[in-house]
Amino acid sequence: MTQVIVLNGGSSSGKSGIARCLQAVLPDPWLALGTDTLVEAMPASVHASEGGIEFTPDGEVIVGPEFRTLEAAWIEGIAAMAHAGARVIVDEVFLGGADSQQRWRKALGELPVLWVGVRCEGAIAAGREVARGDRTIGMAVSQADVVHRGVAYDLEVDTARAEAMECARTIAEHVR
Amino acid sequence: MTQVIVLNGGSSSGKSGIARCLQAVLPDPWLALGTDTLVEAMPASVHASEGGIEFTPDGEVIVGPEFRTLEAAWIEGIAAMAHAGARVIVDEVFLGGADSQQRWRKALGELPVLWVGVRCEGAIAAGREVARGDRTIGMAVSQADVVHRGVAYDLEVDTARAEAMECARTIAEHVR
Amino acid sequence: MTQVIVLNGGSSSGKSGIARCLQAVLPDPWLALGTDTLVEAMPASVHASEGGIEFTPDGEVIVGPEFRTLEAAWIEGIAAMAHAGARVIVDEVFLGGADSQQRWRKALGELPVLWVGVRCEGAIAAGREVARGDRTIGMAVSQADVVHRGVAYDLEVDTARAEAMECARTIAEHVR
Amino acid sequence: MTQVIVLNGGSSSGKSGIARCLQAVLPDPWLALGTDTLVEAMPASVHASEGGIEFTPDGEVIVGPEFRTLEAAWIEGIAAMAHAGARVIVDEVFLGGADSQQRWRKALGELPVLWVGVRCEGAIAAGREVARGDRTIGMAVSQADVVHRGVAYDLEVDTARAEAMECARTIAEHVR
Repeated sequence: MTQVIVLNGGSSSGKSGIARCLQAVLPDPWLALGTDTLVEAMPASVHASEGGIEFTPDGEVIVGPEFRTLEAAWIEGIAAMAHAGARVIVDEVFLGGADSQQRWRKALGELPVLWVGVRCEGAIAAGREVARGDRTIGMAVSQADVVHRGVAYDLEVDTARAEAMECARTIAEHVR
Repeated sequence: MTQVIVLNGGSSSGKSGIARCLQAVLPDPWLALGTDTLVEAMPASVHASEGGIEFTPDGEVIVGPEFRTLEAAWIEGIAAMAHAGARVIVDEVFLGGADSQQRWRKALGELPVLWVGVRCEGAIAAGREVARGDRTIGMAVSQADVVHRGVAYDLEVDTARAEAMECARTIAEHVR
Repeated sequence: MTQVIVLNGGSSSGKSGIARCLQAVLPDPWLALGTDTLVEAMPASVHASEGGIEFTPDGEVIVGPEFRTLEAAWIEGIAAMAHAGARVIVDEVFLGGADSQQRWRKALGELPVLWVGVRCEGAIAAGREVARGDRTIGMAVSQADVVHRGVAYDLEVDTARAEAMECARTIAEHVR
Repeated sequence: MTQVIVLNGGSSSGKSGIARCLQAVLPDPWLALGTDTLVEAMPASVHASEGGIEFTPDGEVIVGPEFRTLEAAWIEGIAAMAHAGARVIVDEVFLGGADSQQRWRKALGELPVLWVGVRCEGAIAAGREVARGDRTIGMAVSQADVVHRGVAYDLEVDTARAEAMECARTIAEHVR
């Protein structure tokens, strides 16, 4: 039985929308947690500090050792929630590509995971970034390809070609 | 060394504000997570379903077995984050009073926890509930006393008598 | 010179996203105001009262005389902003179809207005409503067609077939 | 009959909370609009441009000619809403002190206005700024005194000494 669904994609690729649609179409209740939850849980100082997370004016995201330490504990915690019986959708941005996946893979261990790549062409994601109005401009383009580098998926969806709900239905068919 | 700070208080008692002030005044980075994070992570269906969580028109909150199951896994996850080294501020509403504390106590085990009661007279919390404008009216009054019933604290603060920042400084003095 | 752009469409049809893209692509600064701004400016009591605005559990929106009175003054105010020199994008839901347009037409008088219909098939808008997660389910479907009934447009865009940014560029070509 | 209530105070002094409490305690429906509404209605480019509005890292707010032009039209629009019959609470930050009041006074003309100063000692407002977590740190302190310079009030309230609801009741007694 699938215990964890990991949605990986760049900023403004539409992961959160797919997560909410998945919660609506899957028969059991699933928790949806992700990078945004973690960033919000961190102290404001981590956002600004050299060792924390930085959003450069042109949309690049730089994370330092302080961020990585809290993130490692966060990942352990999500894994523990799944081990304790919760079914969890993880909405993630693998800034480190294959390395990021490796961190999650190690923590999730033997849990049955469905790895999903959420693709969206950079130019289209950039337009959606402007449309939503609450993100640093440039993140979408700078993350669109790099987050998928070397990552292995069970399936991939493309939000430039299908609505969030349609992507969710496709993913749901792979959930056991 | 204190690993977890549990802030327990009714809706609109000012817990989240104290949590953010604590993150600002404590020298190490602390994660702030709580009931609001969990509720937001749950599917919309759980909010509406009989087994989930219900906000009655007069502000009462009723949680069912489906909510409790996900919550139990959530608590295990928070405990695992602390075990993995993260220092965590838990912003909680003990709807079940002493029973709720017992659930957390069991999951947190040997971790050094600072239990903090966040008091605010119901009438004052009710005014703040109107002022913030994003909560069901009545929650503040219905939770003000019940969440503290039978709960044991290391210290208590009263947001009707002290600013959030002042409460945070008081709490910080008890953090080792 | 176009002074006002009125975007009319059902809930979750993508009007606000187009408005933000328009603000980004148009060379002059435009204000974006709309139904959401007005509803947020109203007292909580109007949301609940019989004479105010009501969101039924199945997503229908019913507005009463109290809402209509404040709305009439709001429309006069938007017209005055345009008369005072501001270029304004109005993001609207014509629940009354042609009657709603007539109310705006009367208030805007001789001002040069670009009337834009924002179409989105109900089924697709319904999926987006689930994906965004912050709207009463059912509004998208119940408004998708009714808001366009009898309304005359200078141009129409369809967010089921084009991205918000693309729609904005099409509209911008019609702005003088 | 009072048609407009202007609440003027620095960032994090508690104006919006008082506005919502006023909407709850006043018998008639009042619209609440203010600086935040205007800033949100402006294009993202105005936030960043030299002629627009700038939030410096230490919390100072600098507004340029482009902002002032849109703001002038906005003020005319609010005045028109009041002339058209809406009762309006204006939640404002008089960065220019007496000059800002003069701009509003000119636009509001003969309308019966209640001018309210919302005081909050800088140090306390600074703590609340940290507690709310969504504002640039430093705004509260830099605005606490300057916004009241040379401004004439019908009454003043102090949110460091009274709850938002209590302030609202005091103000409501002056509304005719």
